[in-house]
Amino acid sequence: MLHLVVVIRTLGVLLLVYSVAIIPPLLISVGYQDGEWPYWLIIWMEALLLGWVMWWPLRRRELDLHRRDGFTIVTLFWFILGFISAVPFLFMPQLDFSDAVFEAISAFTTTGATVIVGLDQLPPSILFWRQELQWLGGIGVIVTAVAILPMLGIGGMQLYRAETPGPIKGEKLTPRIAQTARALWFIYGGLTITCATAYWLAGMSWFDAVAHSLTTVSTGGFSTHDDSLAYFDSALIEAIACLFMLLGAINFGIHYLALHKGRIDLYWRQDEIRIFLKVVAILIALIAATLFLSGTYTHPLTALRYAAFQTISVITSTGYGTADFSLWPLFLPVLLIFSSFMGGCAGSTAGGMKVIRFLLLVKQGRREIYRLVHPQIVRTLKIDGRPVAEEVTSAVWGFFSLYILLFAILMMVLMAYGMDQVTAFGAVATCLNNLGPGLGEVATNFIGVSDGAKWLLSFAMLAGRLELFTVLVLFSRIFWRS
Amino acid sequence: MLHLVVVIRTLGVLLLVYSVAIIPPLLISVGYQDGEWPYWLIIWMEALLLGWVMWWPLRRRELDLHRRDGFTIVTLFWFILGFISAVPFLFMPQLDFSDAVFEAISAFTTTGATVIVGLDQLPPSILFWRQELQWLGGIGVIVTAVAILPMLGIGGMQLYRAETPGPIKGEKLTPRIAQTARALWFIYGGLTITCATAYWLAGMSWFDAVAHSLTTVSTGGFSTHDDSLAYFDSALIEAIACLFMLLGAINFGIHYLALHKGRIDLYWRQDEIRIFLKVVAILIALIAATLFLSGTYTHPLTALRYAAFQTISVITSTGYGTADFSLWPLFLPVLLIFSSFMGGCAGSTAGGMKVIRFLLLVKQGRREIYRLVHPQIVRTLKIDGRPVAEEVTSAVWGFFSLYILLFAILMMVLMAYGMDQVTAFGAVATCLNNLGPGLGEVATNFIGVSDGAKWLLSFAMLAGRLELFTVLVLFSRIFWRS
Ligand SMILES: [K+]
Ligand SMILES: [K+]
Repeated sequence: MLHLVVVIRTLGVLLLVYSVAIIPPLLISVGYQDGEWPYWLIIWMEALLLGWVMWWPLRRRELDLHRRDGFTIVTLFWFILGFISAVPFLFMPQLDFSDAVFEAISAFTTTGATVIVGLDQLPPSILFWRQELQWLGGIGVIVTAVAILPMLGIGGMQLYRAETPGPIKGEKLTPRIAQTARALWFIYGGLTITCATAYWLAGMSWFDAVAHSLTTVSTGGFSTHDDSLAYFDSALIEAIACLFMLLGAINFGIHYLALHKGRIDLYWRQDEIRIFLKVVAILIALIAATLFLSGTYTHPLTALRYAAFQTISVITSTGYGTADFSLWPLFLPVLLIFSSFMGGCAGSTAGGMKVIRFLLLVKQGRREIYRLVHPQIVRTLKIDGRPVAEEVTSAVWGFFSLYILLFAILMMVLMAYGMDQVTAFGAVATCLNNLGPGLGEVATNFIGVSDGAKWLLSFAMLAGRLELFTVLVLFSRIFWRS
Repeated sequence: MLHLVVVIRTLGVLLLVYSVAIIPPLLISVGYQDGEWPYWLIIWMEALLLGWVMWWPLRRRELDLHRRDGFTIVTLFWFILGFISAVPFLFMPQLDFSDAVFEAISAFTTTGATVIVGLDQLPPSILFWRQELQWLGGIGVIVTAVAILPMLGIGGMQLYRAETPGPIKGEKLTPRIAQTARALWFIYGGLTITCATAYWLAGMSWFDAVAHSLTTVSTGGFSTHDDSLAYFDSALIEAIACLFMLLGAINFGIHYLALHKGRIDLYWRQDEIRIFLKVVAILIALIAATLFLSGTYTHPLTALRYAAFQTISVITSTGYGTADFSLWPLFLPVLLIFSSFMGGCAGSTAGGMKVIRFLLLVKQGRREIYRLVHPQIVRTLKIDGRPVAEEVTSAVWGFFSLYILLFAILMMVLMAYGMDQVTAFGAVATCLNNLGPGLGEVATNFIGVSDGAKWLLSFAMLAGRLELFTVLVLFSRIFWRS
């Protein structure tokens, strides 16, 4: 029962912090006079009240968070905030409850799958809320991934223990999280402001510049226009987006170290970042060549432009579009969806399984072949020149197989709801990988999807965002038995 | 160069043995007067001559096979025999070279994907040849999997070292293989004769009974009728087929032990067999219920009959059909194809990744969750009550990730040939898992597939049959460098 107290109090505090997030749309609502301000006021007060009720009565209990509470708090935090963030969407006539929760969880997990069309006609405060939610989700996942999950030992994230700022203090989470979170907010905020300024200089309105910077750095992918970034039709804006999507998909622990030590070469010294950029370059070349040779774009530079943007958008799991890649010929749609399974670097806002895990998989495959040829020689796996503990490797295998298994099961359940195979494949992939656009019926939005499927996909987005185990461990008997 | 000598001589001997296989279709051709006998005579003499040329000049060299020659010999053996077995198909006017090789490799790997329709009108000797090839491939894969691959250390097959009959003599393969092979032939032959007799008693003609027993025990799935086992429309025949498909998909090392020690309880003592039968039972129940509730079959027992047969046929990777499961509603086609990824037990004729590897994956997943909750307690993975070496587990992870990777790459290459997503998914799955029937355009046959795709799929069948690494190691620099 002691633990339940900590869980509730911590969530209360987080909720009080969260209530601050409702001030920007409230101000925008008043400023743009879109008539939504009473709703925002109600929601703000509700969040304040709920947070206060959860925190105040328990505020004096001297308690420290322990490892196992971490799973419950992280999962509940994302779950509850998903629901609370859905409240503003409930006031939109075209959305029912399932829609609103789907949209909010999609935003908060930086997935960016939407059930809304007609964005260009929405009230500015609602539009801004979607963008802001993704931005908050982005910093949420960075803090979760860099500061919390490594200590919980999720799916090989321990790899990052040594990388991240701040000391490690055994089982106690609180002091370390606060310190790390501050450094990460600083970098995240800085990147966002730079990105917004760049967008504005490139010709966006201030509103659009800010709104899109929030979903670029967070690799969220929501836009204020139905046409996404194609609305601006500007190569410069696309280039800016590409740069900041890539920065958002790189480990924020490394951003911190590079900034802290003033050494830009640190980026290139990381195996994960190097491989990530190499894979991106190879994919762009392959896709541009295929687009050009298949006659989809008649000029090689046009092919390169669209290939580069869509590739970076998908592999960083942002999901902006300047073209509907699901209509591209041959293997291109499937290749892009596959690439989102890799995703960006761990400790970033990107989704997917993360480059580091793929790197380990590939290295393990190579080591296996080496062992077959030289069975008497033992080779250790190394990342960044340091040996990887067997414990970490086996955590990654566990993660990988669970990912594949969950993918297969979710895909079949969606088909049981009557979805066709291509749509189900795309829908599960895009939600589990926190990407946004899918294939088939869900290539651009999820309006046509049944309510049951929406709930299932909301679960997939949360599970993917929290590296599966954080969520799934709560469903295990072992967790509750002891 | 010394090694090349061994490789050639061994292949020569194997070819001489193989030439015996051409006598049955030769006799059948004469007996049924189908006019094909001159072809069979030519092919027989060619095999004898080629084998003799490879063996005779090198016969006096005193050499033992070593570990690394194993990879080359096994791969070359399957590759060369695939090509040689294609020769009879070249005499059929409707098949070109790619078709003939595809059909032969499909037969020899016990896949059972076909490019021939109009089976009921084919000359008996050709029909019999297809069936016999699968039977030979079946015993070939058992010997390879039980006696050879464990010593090469492929993908966790070392697990079976302790199970299999005969002593282990370090690096020398020859004496052990011969002894093991003899015991396995005996069991395999016995099962086939029993199966043929049962089919005959159930009402098949002698020719059909023998022909189908050859592809039941080998889980090959070729039939002498275009309608496969639906031709007989007999629940009794289907039940016999189910029993022998299951027996064919169980580890032949266990068959040997159970027979040798006269203890039938040994089957149920194996984790792998127990889980396999449980999964089969659960799938049948789920599929039967879905077929009935969706109204595909109006009587529950009819639903059960078709569910049981198709499930057992697919999960044992046999590929017989009494219904076209690719047209079943909802998730059923995909579920069945997914189940073929698991396949049957290791050391059997079944395809897929094998139950034992899935068991390890699941146990690893569970151990991961346990470790998250109790990070200080170390648990070892156990199969049949004995701990599994970390070396074996990591070999299985390597295998699993390579399997998924190869699957994704092959699927995209097929789409580059212009195949649609569902067909490409089904085609790669069915070939890599040595199943036979696919989805979409390749649900019943591979006639509509382009030549390039046929070659690629032939490669997939061989790679799947030889547990990937046996083949892929030959493409690695490490193998050739030392
Ligand atoms: K996204
Ligand atoms: K088969």
